Amino acid sequence: VTVPTTPLLTDLYQLTMAQGYWRTGLSDREVSFDYFFRSNPFGGGYTVTAGQEELLRFLEGFRFSAQDMVYLESLGIFEEGYLDHLEGLTFEGEVRAMAEGTVAFPGEPVIRMQGRLEQCQLVESTVLNLMNFQSLVATKACRVCLEAGDDNVMEFGLRRAQGPDGSLTASRAAFIGGCASTSNLQAGRAYRIPVRGTHAHSWVLAFDDELAAFRKFAEIYGDSTVLLVDTYDTLSSGVPNAIEVAREMERAGHRLAGIRLDSGELARLSIEARKMLDAAGLEHVKIVCSGDLDEWRIRRLKQDGARIDIWGVGTNLVTADGEPALNGVYKLAALRGVEGQWSGRAKLTDEVLKATLPGRKQVWRLAGADGEHVADWIEMEGEEPDTKSGVLGFHLEGEARMDLIKGAEEAIALLHLVMRGGEMLDMPPALVDVRSRVKQQAARLPEEVRRLDEPRTGAVLVGPRLLEETRSLRSGKA
Amino acid sequence: VTVPTTPLLTDLYQLTMAQGYWRTGLSDREVSFDYFFRSNPFGGGYTVTAGQEELLRFLEGFRFSAQDMVYLESLGIFEEGYLDHLEGLTFEGEVRAMAEGTVAFPGEPVIRMQGRLEQCQLVESTVLNLMNFQSLVATKACRVCLEAGDDNVMEFGLRRAQGPDGSLTASRAAFIGGCASTSNLQAGRAYRIPVRGTHAHSWVLAFDDELAAFRKFAEIYGDSTVLLVDTYDTLSSGVPNAIEVAREMERAGHRLAGIRLDSGELARLSIEARKMLDAAGLEHVKIVCSGDLDEWRIRRLKQDGARIDIWGVGTNLVTADGEPALNGVYKLAALRGVEGQWSGRAKLTDEVLKATLPGRKQVWRLAGADGEHVADWIEMEGEEPDTKSGVLGFHLEGEARMDLIKGAEEAIALLHLVMRGGEMLDMPPALVDVRSRVKQQAARLPEEVRRLDEPRTGAVLVGPRLLEETRSLRSGKA
Repeated sequence: VTVPTTPLLTDLYQLTMAQGYWRTGLSDREVSFDYFFRSNPFGGGYTVTAGQEELLRFLEGFRFSAQDMVYLESLGIFEEGYLDHLEGLTFEGEVRAMAEGTVAFPGEPVIRMQGRLEQCQLVESTVLNLMNFQSLVATKACRVCLEAGDDNVMEFGLRRAQGPDGSLTASRAAFIGGCASTSNLQAGRAYRIPVRGTHAHSWVLAFDDELAAFRKFAEIYGDSTVLLVDTYDTLSSGVPNAIEVAREMERAGHRLAGIRLDSGELARLSIEARKMLDAAGLEHVKIVCSGDLDEWRIRRLKQDGARIDIWGVGTNLVTADGEPALNGVYKLAALRGVEGQWSGRAKLTDEVLKATLPGRKQVWRLAGADGEHVADWIEMEGEEPDTKSGVLGFHLEGEARMDLIKGAEEAIALLHLVMRGGEMLDMPPALVDVRSRVKQQAARLPEEVRRLDEPRTGAVLVGPRLLEETRSLRSGKA
Repeated sequence: VTVPTTPLLTDLYQLTMAQGYWRTGLSDREVSFDYFFRSNPFGGGYTVTAGQEELLRFLEGFRFSAQDMVYLESLGIFEEGYLDHLEGLTFEGEVRAMAEGTVAFPGEPVIRMQGRLEQCQLVESTVLNLMNFQSLVATKACRVCLEAGDDNVMEFGLRRAQGPDGSLTASRAAFIGGCASTSNLQAGRAYRIPVRGTHAHSWVLAFDDELAAFRKFAEIYGDSTVLLVDTYDTLSSGVPNAIEVAREMERAGHRLAGIRLDSGELARLSIEARKMLDAAGLEHVKIVCSGDLDEWRIRRLKQDGARIDIWGVGTNLVTADGEPALNGVYKLAALRGVEGQWSGRAKLTDEVLKATLPGRKQVWRLAGADGEHVADWIEMEGEEPDTKSGVLGFHLEGEARMDLIKGAEEAIALLHLVMRGGEMLDMPPALVDVRSRVKQQAARLPEEVRRLDEPRTGAVLVGPRLLEETRSLRSGKA
């Protein structure tokens, strides 16, 4: 629904290079590109990948419109023959991808694109834009929801999100990551996400007093009423007025659903408000809390004994505060020669962190008998891990230290062929199923990968053939 | 072009409250809302406001579509009579706004909306979404460009921006804030921003060696060629190969435009590359630099003697790294009674920082003889500052300390009536003119407001009538 519909959502240099390939006769050379990220965001131990559905829809609909062509022509950079060629261009490649909602780790190919050089190059910026942002927010949401435990988390980030779409796709990714609802109606409609909300301070200010404002809201919304109690003074005005209205509602056969705290010392206020509500026999009234929340603050509030039932998270979630961009990249990993043989390619740069792994690779997830994550193993396509006698792997960083992974009962290939000839092979899964996958996979991560404080990143090793390929490129090149 | 076209880009609770106002007979009550922000982003001393044009276009086109109505009905929250009413609803209010690109300070109304309570309430989330993000990025761009001095700054943030629109409107705001170009073609087309780019590592990797890749690129793009020199090793491979190609180009009557550094120690590499280029008689070849740049890093590189001519800034600019959201809010400030008199409203909360200023206000900019900013003065509409004998004002924070502002030669009202009856009174200014306004206003800020390190925020004082109004609300209410 919100897929970018123009291939112009790209960087100029993609088209400049594509024209170069066309001029050089390289356009149709078969290549393999990897999308991967270099580190987990927020200092965490894992990343939740998201954006796959929108990426596939974008690729399937890839075509320059007549309007797009007029603009490209006006730039004076492209020659007529190339513009003619572009006008009919579609994306015809193959895509292998981790299922949306899969937990992944740095260095692993999340998406592998195989096809003609020109076509794979032209979609780079869009692959990055869609995958980087949605994975970032899905990861943040997963972190927030893990800290909230069994409590519901409501997303309401629209007002400070990064533009209209910075909100829309953030709502989608937040739901994937575990949020129960969004406040954003457009997102609710576009992605069939439940929508929830309370009321704002302006409702209270529009009436002569708080009690009248509360009473009126309850009269209209009955059992779904949640009252915002901090417009004047939370404990001396807001909560007592809410209790009075709740009692009036009970006499009329209704129940107040909740109160919302939005400022002040949330732990103390929620504890006091809970006492006041309970003393009034209103144990069923929930306490909703909002105001600059994130995973760290939720944890601290819980440690401080806060009596909060529902968490409203906005700005820090949808803008991924602390790390507002995922450092995902899209790199050429292999080229097919004229005789059909593939040869690996890698960027060997001054900075080790900016180097890449060559070749057409598969990622295997190795799990123990209880399903718990043991390690991921990246190896050239066609190789399989030998879980019986132990999987031989090498650590990515430093001196490629060798390791023999034992205790893996299960090995699952994470990259699946999802597009061939530019067409999706399956309907994308429903968002609720993507959300369930995240929840299940996060639960299978070891505690030291999942935790907020000094986590270790999930173990990733490369297989012997991939190590060999990387080493031979390093020694032979430059 | 990219204005959100559905009023559904809002939070559910706006519609819940609006239905409440309708049920209560308050919908048509005349009100005044203020959009303002609570603090300058990035620890800075000022904020560049942006987003006004898109906001006005959104308001002018405000109307629920038949599709929108189907969705709203499906929620089961709204009664039939209210849905009928919504279907015909347009925005008919008055808008007073600072011109787009105006520098503003915390607490100042940037936008004042006056009209019917329901209509002003329904647009809140969109006002916030559009203004917060564009102002944030315009401010970041202004900071970056001030550090770059006379050097050009190219924006290329698409790949790690927050969604498709997190890029698109960011490109617009970055241009307003002072960037010279964008890499994003869709933004270039939508906003007529110059588009620029070089090439990626994949261009180099697609050839058998770097020299062949450079040679081919230069052959196609001639005098506009900029070569990325860090795919293998910057100083031992990239720069020497670029120099060889530059010499070949000279023999054919062409000139290499530049080289680009994208990794490593940029100061040292640029100094060495400059030496090598100069030694080869290539003084005209510019050095373009990119890679995690922001205002702080640009300053440091300049301090370290980096020889960089053009700065490419991406992720940190478009995602506003360091503070990915502007804390702008939209608050009810005044209500008109049945007899036509206005009365102020304010949120008086436990947290002073979340409190607001009541009434329908004007912001006056006081400047010295040289045009330099002296202070801003917020006062009730209709009052004018007396620059001759000194302007009496009170500091916003703490005990409302009194001050007499001397030395102001000029007083300019910043809020202008730009919309009446839901229609724009003027064509929005061209983006280049908005950009010029930013540059001019930033230049007029005192150095201690403009600087990165421990700046002071531009002085803002409230006039005596506004102070009186605020105090009487505080003592009379709660």
